[in-house]
Amino acid sequence: MNLLAHMSWEEVKEYLGRDDRIILPLGAVEEHGRHLGLGTDFIEAEAIAGRAGKATGVAVAPTLNYGQSLAQTDFPGTLFLRPATLISVLSDLLHGMRQHGFRRILVVNGHGGNTAALSLAVQDVCYDLRDLRVKTFEWWTDAEAYLVIVKTLGEQKGSHASDGETAFMLAVCPNAVKMQRLTGRDAPITPSREFTTAATFPQKYPDGIMGLDPRRATREAGEALLEKSVSICVRELNEW
Amino acid sequence: MNLLAHMSWEEVKEYLGRDDRIILPLGAVEEHGRHLGLGTDFIEAEAIAGRAGKATGVAVAPTLNYGQSLAQTDFPGTLFLRPATLISVLSDLLHGMRQHGFRRILVVNGHGGNTAALSLAVQDVCYDLRDLRVKTFEWWTDAEAYLVIVKTLGEQKGSHASDGETAFMLAVCPNAVKMQRLTGRDAPITPSREFTTAATFPQKYPDGIMGLDPRRATREAGEALLEKSVSICVRELNEW
Amino acid sequence: MNLLAHMSWEEVKEYLGRDDRIILPLGAVEEHGRHLGLGTDFIEAEAIAGRAGKATGVAVAPTLNYGQSLAQTDFPGTLFLRPATLISVLSDLLHGMRQHGFRRILVVNGHGGNTAALSLAVQDVCYDLRDLRVKTFEWWTDAEAYLVIVKTLGEQKGSHASDGETAFMLAVCPNAVKMQRLTGRDAPITPSREFTTAATFPQKYPDGIMGLDPRRATREAGEALLEKSVSICVRELNEW
Amino acid sequence: MNLLAHMSWEEVKEYLGRDDRIILPLGAVEEHGRHLGLGTDFIEAEAIAGRAGKATGVAVAPTLNYGQSLAQTDFPGTLFLRPATLISVLSDLLHGMRQHGFRRILVVNGHGGNTAALSLAVQDVCYDLRDLRVKTFEWWTDAEAYLVIVKTLGEQKGSHASDGETAFMLAVCPNAVKMQRLTGRDAPITPSREFTTAATFPQKYPDGIMGLDPRRATREAGEALLEKSVSICVRELNEW
Amino acid sequence: MNLLAHMSWEEVKEYLGRDDRIILPLGAVEEHGRHLGLGTDFIEAEAIAGRAGKATGVAVAPTLNYGQSLAQTDFPGTLFLRPATLISVLSDLLHGMRQHGFRRILVVNGHGGNTAALSLAVQDVCYDLRDLRVKTFEWWTDAEAYLVIVKTLGEQKGSHASDGETAFMLAVCPNAVKMQRLTGRDAPITPSREFTTAATFPQKYPDGIMGLDPRRATREAGEALLEKSVSICVRELNEW
Amino acid sequence: MNLLAHMSWEEVKEYLGRDDRIILPLGAVEEHGRHLGLGTDFIEAEAIAGRAGKATGVAVAPTLNYGQSLAQTDFPGTLFLRPATLISVLSDLLHGMRQHGFRRILVVNGHGGNTAALSLAVQDVCYDLRDLRVKTFEWWTDAEAYLVIVKTLGEQKGSHASDGETAFMLAVCPNAVKMQRLTGRDAPITPSREFTTAATFPQKYPDGIMGLDPRRATREAGEALLEKSVSICVRELNEW
Repeated sequence: MNLLAHMSWEEVKEYLGRDDRIILPLGAVEEHGRHLGLGTDFIEAEAIAGRAGKATGVAVAPTLNYGQSLAQTDFPGTLFLRPATLISVLSDLLHGMRQHGFRRILVVNGHGGNTAALSLAVQDVCYDLRDLRVKTFEWWTDAEAYLVIVKTLGEQKGSHASDGETAFMLAVCPNAVKMQRLTGRDAPITPSREFTTAATFPQKYPDGIMGLDPRRATREAGEALLEKSVSICVRELNEW
Repeated sequence: MNLLAHMSWEEVKEYLGRDDRIILPLGAVEEHGRHLGLGTDFIEAEAIAGRAGKATGVAVAPTLNYGQSLAQTDFPGTLFLRPATLISVLSDLLHGMRQHGFRRILVVNGHGGNTAALSLAVQDVCYDLRDLRVKTFEWWTDAEAYLVIVKTLGEQKGSHASDGETAFMLAVCPNAVKMQRLTGRDAPITPSREFTTAATFPQKYPDGIMGLDPRRATREAGEALLEKSVSICVRELNEW
Repeated sequence: MNLLAHMSWEEVKEYLGRDDRIILPLGAVEEHGRHLGLGTDFIEAEAIAGRAGKATGVAVAPTLNYGQSLAQTDFPGTLFLRPATLISVLSDLLHGMRQHGFRRILVVNGHGGNTAALSLAVQDVCYDLRDLRVKTFEWWTDAEAYLVIVKTLGEQKGSHASDGETAFMLAVCPNAVKMQRLTGRDAPITPSREFTTAATFPQKYPDGIMGLDPRRATREAGEALLEKSVSICVRELNEW
Repeated sequence: MNLLAHMSWEEVKEYLGRDDRIILPLGAVEEHGRHLGLGTDFIEAEAIAGRAGKATGVAVAPTLNYGQSLAQTDFPGTLFLRPATLISVLSDLLHGMRQHGFRRILVVNGHGGNTAALSLAVQDVCYDLRDLRVKTFEWWTDAEAYLVIVKTLGEQKGSHASDGETAFMLAVCPNAVKMQRLTGRDAPITPSREFTTAATFPQKYPDGIMGLDPRRATREAGEALLEKSVSICVRELNEW
Repeated sequence: MNLLAHMSWEEVKEYLGRDDRIILPLGAVEEHGRHLGLGTDFIEAEAIAGRAGKATGVAVAPTLNYGQSLAQTDFPGTLFLRPATLISVLSDLLHGMRQHGFRRILVVNGHGGNTAALSLAVQDVCYDLRDLRVKTFEWWTDAEAYLVIVKTLGEQKGSHASDGETAFMLAVCPNAVKMQRLTGRDAPITPSREFTTAATFPQKYPDGIMGLDPRRATREAGEALLEKSVSICVRELNEW
Repeated sequence: MNLLAHMSWEEVKEYLGRDDRIILPLGAVEEHGRHLGLGTDFIEAEAIAGRAGKATGVAVAPTLNYGQSLAQTDFPGTLFLRPATLISVLSDLLHGMRQHGFRRILVVNGHGGNTAALSLAVQDVCYDLRDLRVKTFEWWTDAEAYLVIVKTLGEQKGSHASDGETAFMLAVCPNAVKMQRLTGRDAPITPSREFTTAATFPQKYPDGIMGLDPRRATREAGEALLEKSVSICVRELNEW
């Protein structure tokens, strides 16, 4: 049993006697097209983290469900932490983990909007706590994981709420997928040196999907993606 | 379907066309004796919130799993947000909810250490946003809910991780209950004008239980407590 | 002589050679009905603290006159510190006291709006400074002190600016009491799970009194209340 | 009656119907030599403010007793707000005053360590609130007030806790003056481009007096200084 | 003339009558191997920004010389802003620019450690200021600019202080280049999911160079790189 | 070679083996009349610092180009850091310097709006870092430097952007001086106890010059002023 939520302090004490690793899943509450639930990012992160924890016996911390989603804020239901808040949250959690003796932390981040804050919080905390080490896994930017999407769904240009992510959700939480709400519109991602913000995001991606209409997504592709993500995390934990 | 995590932005938009209420569960990651999981508080809050949402159709926001647990911090595994951080988090979430059109928020708070920060955040946000209204339900301080404990478990002096809370967990998450780890020690709660802090809490409550050894807790009592909690929340939502 | 304001640093040094206790009075600048001065809360706290200091020889720090009064802010003259500010102020003062060698601090808090911030500041500071101990006395929530009100003024439902507080002010600062401005209106306090905020407070308590019209308040009742409050503080200081 | 502490909200409302001025006294809790009480700065500010209020009918806000005293912090009993805290406090108070309709604020500052924070807070608040006007009076830097010291005590080089300040305290709070503790040592103030800090202040001014041994101070000089200070404040209020 | 530093407010007023674009160069003060000056990043950013401003007539703001360099902090001379500080600085500058009427801002960022803070600051400010648009150019991550390095110096794996950056500095500030201090050691950049921090950076890159020993760098390559960088900025400004 | 920007970390390491002094120039981006560039303050500070560094061999840190300019903010192009931001920036830089072993810091401050924040930051940092010593030089408030203005330009009442400052700029950066834009208007500086703010500054000084029309300024006077400023800094560094 290695979910921190289910372990008592005595069990954690025993765990810390033999291990100093922990997995921390990060998510967001943010629009993911007309068809995916707002919790998509934390559902994904929790799915990967839980399975990686099970496979390795490494403790899994409860998920931080809220993240930085300023660019998507005009879509109903998106809830977000402002950057300074998120950095403080992550800093508090990393300090707390280190206080108890966790020294190697794998952050499974399910949301691109968190990446910058995570990076800054880790830099800041590790400046003061020199023996803390932090890895991060993000399935949607990971080169190895991406190859699975290419193999199962074909060459593509899509990210947020597009076919890879839809496939992932079909595999881990089909209740949060409503394929019938899709409208068939592609919103190409064009590289740009301009920041995408609360004002420009909805102009570029009116229904909140970045890239291809995700109707070709399959549960099988999602399962392959999940499996690959978990196996990368397992390797990162074991080869540390 | 009313879990925000599973609703897409389009579904939230439809919801906001007919309702402006939302439920926000707050928890903590904190020791609860040798026998209860560290996630006890958020598991309880999520259980109440989810059922109240189902019964009323009111939307349920994802749980804030981390809270303020400074006094329990020396027990392995306790993770906490410092007060200023938690106030910022709650302020961000309340602002975000109001931005989308949620105007009546029921906070189901599973953790006593959050109460002060919640109160301050609500005061602060509502000073700026005058049409926002916030209620809170805390099963462990609620006079009505308490009567259920008395009726099912008998007259008592116990709170954190004691028999009422143990009963609650037996009902909602038996996997996080290890009765065999109990040591049979009562730690009486004596009223005091001195603050209980990180230094004094472990002196007063060495195994982290405040009050009676919880071995008399039963699943039935927990179910009655859960049912009562849900019915109070339902009433608070409906009579608003 | 034990008012910090009147002691020179040399006298404080001598004091710290023989004692490590200090009393800190907290107040607010906030409406208290049409009849009581805005300084009511700090006047009360200072009155109790000064007398308790005199009776025990314990040093009394200068009063923090301003507090958290967001809910009363629409009444002319209410001035307040935002929650984050008040927590910082209290944190700075507690750190400073500890730096000099004060280790046991009795906070005499005259204002309900400060309670949450005080609790959070104490938790936060004591997490870092493990040998600091803090007690608090609030006459208006204290069970023992309340019995004096019941005995002298009768069974009642009143708090802020109602008969107990008016009696208190008649005893300690009659210049700040204008009984002739009272309008005879009772504003019953009904228990509620909804937060009282800047928007809802004036709706529930239009003239700023929570509870009974305080015309039955007497100076004698106030003196009994003051005496009881002081004796509790003296006991808390002596039995520490 | 014009002490805000003694005025009820109804009286403040009436006042604001005819005036928009207010006086805010600022102090500190800080060493002032072996002979003056730690509250010297707020006692002085409150004395000037109260008398100026009485003479003009302008409302007087409660005194902020604590200030920025980092350089004196190693002298027992000095308590201080860190700079960011003090700026927040002042900002909150100025915002609150403006919210109620006070538009002209005279700050009577009794302490040099507050000057920088006051200046920054005023600049910051007035950037957002363009119709707020703030004056400040500091008796110890005021050219007109200084002439009184020169006339009554003679040509001098002294400031903090030296003869002018001692004279002032003899006039307004003799209980906080212990002349017998003086040691007869002069600590010349030499102009320097180096900041005086917590480390260097005690080296330069071992007993906390900056300048002349203050034994030539007289109550009469203090009364002249107080009178002059009040008359300047009265003029600043009337000619606004 | 379009350096803000040299323009008077009247000239800026005239400029704003005809244009709403501005260039903001960001740098850092950070180790760049044994051979490059600590100011490398701001020198580069300023060089590109100044030339792009000259070519387009777009105003160039003064350079922010300091940045986020926590990972390099153990190398003598590295000076850094903590993440929260840098976000506040950038937020203040963006707000100020928008206040005057600048609506399109090109940030020329010379330093990788700034990227996360810049992204968060832009998101945060643009949430409140919806008509502000911000682009960023970073020569060292830019795909087009990178091709110039490949063409002039050959296929490579190097970044911070390696041959591309050394070439750049040979072109824009040869005084800050001391080739004779190079030791001939390559420090391969290996992709990793672990964060590089203050503790691990010096272990991986003992002399502060990430990648190839930069002795093959040439001034010609640097000039080509500069020219390309400027031309990209010019295009981004003109096609906006 | 002693510009930190041009020194590599290895050179700084060597420097710190023999010296612990450093010069930090502070500026602002702020209106300086119709005729002087917005960068006037940092250009001046950098000019003095660079020459003082050259004369003594003391290291010169890169200039902080932005400062606190709230009162001048309505003049086009003025960019500013809010007080809390500037205090954080200075605190970060002082901490960083001390970390590397710099213990004596000479701040050459070119801008009056920075003085308060600098003072607070130094106090705050030196409370925690007791062996750090900081001096400041401000040519425009310095009694010795002022005598040069009097001698070269005559008895005067002028400060910001007036004849002394114009002369200085003629000497160090004539490109940023446009004498032909002067309108011949004097804006007398009258001592006042009222703060000059964003609202009142432009009323008192409509074209942004405080004091005399600066047309009598000469390059020779500026050179004398620069020379004097440098010689004072050299002395402060050498006699430390």
